[in-house]
Amino acid sequence: MSSNRINKFARAAAFLLLGAGGSVEAQTGEKSAIMNVLSSYEAALNASNAAAVMPLYADDAVFMPPNSQPAVGAAAVRQAYDAVFNAIKLNLKFTVAEVVQLAPEWAFARTNSAGTVTINAAGAKSAEANQELFIFKKGADGAWKIARYSFSTTNPPGRQQ
Amino acid sequence: MSSNRINKFARAAAFLLLGAGGSVEAQTGEKSAIMNVLSSYEAALNASNAAAVMPLYADDAVFMPPNSQPAVGAAAVRQAYDAVFNAIKLNLKFTVAEVVQLAPEWAFARTNSAGTVTINAAGAKSAEANQELFIFKKGADGAWKIARYSFSTTNPPGRQQ
Repeated sequence: MSSNRINKFARAAAFLLLGAGGSVEAQTGEKSAIMNVLSSYEAALNASNAAAVMPLYADDAVFMPPNSQPAVGAAAVRQAYDAVFNAIKLNLKFTVAEVVQLAPEWAFARTNSAGTVTINAAGAKSAEANQELFIFKKGADGAWKIARYSFSTTNPPGRQQ
Repeated sequence: MSSNRINKFARAAAFLLLGAGGSVEAQTGEKSAIMNVLSSYEAALNASNAAAVMPLYADDAVFMPPNSQPAVGAAAVRQAYDAVFNAIKLNLKFTVAEVVQLAPEWAFARTNSAGTVTINAAGAKSAEANQELFIFKKGADGAWKIARYSFSTTNPPGRQQ
């Protein structure tokens, strides 16, 4: 075993001893790090800033926006955000329902978001409310990144946006 | 350590030795088990059978259907499916894009589904297409169960259902 591999194993074993047999609410440090990614995502989204969104995603991430096929991989994710930001301006506040660490390098977060959406072409503003499910992966550099992300509106039918 | 705890640790350690440091495509046995849950889910959904859906969910699961607040816990999940099956009749085929095991007791699956939806009240049938993100947890009995589930339509805007 390389020392890198030994370190990984020791870290994983420590994690399992702490939370053997099931999920553990993410430990404070990891949870903070993931909450920070969510805050950065909220800020990038509200700024319609695709360049600021991208470092929050893993290279092999899958973004699953409604009314679209899943965007698989960074290039497709970037294209999807460019399309979103071209069409609408969001002003959302995210509320974190839970952050759960599943393994040393995997976690998920469930959130709700609420605020407004403005259609850029028409200028019409309406209420927006969503529920989000993020799967996070910790990269080799120790940074948590969005690996998979699915969301949908919580508005009643007929008020999709 | 109890022997149960030792077994859990040994199983977890074996998993880590197989796939230390990242995700592994779910091993054949686990992947088959998860694919079986997805097949059972497809069958229960197409039969509008909430009683058959429920054993596929963990007790503390969260179901996140569009146009609704998240259903948290088995009772709320059941209520949500009752409402869905009361309103519509689905005839969907699921295609599995990926099944990834994250830890001995955690995995996720990403799927697409396509087929038809019939509005029970009106009898109107239309094309339905969705993308799904499932998080699975392995219970104490060794059965993989749906722990979190978010999906959305892939139909273009204006053809939500």
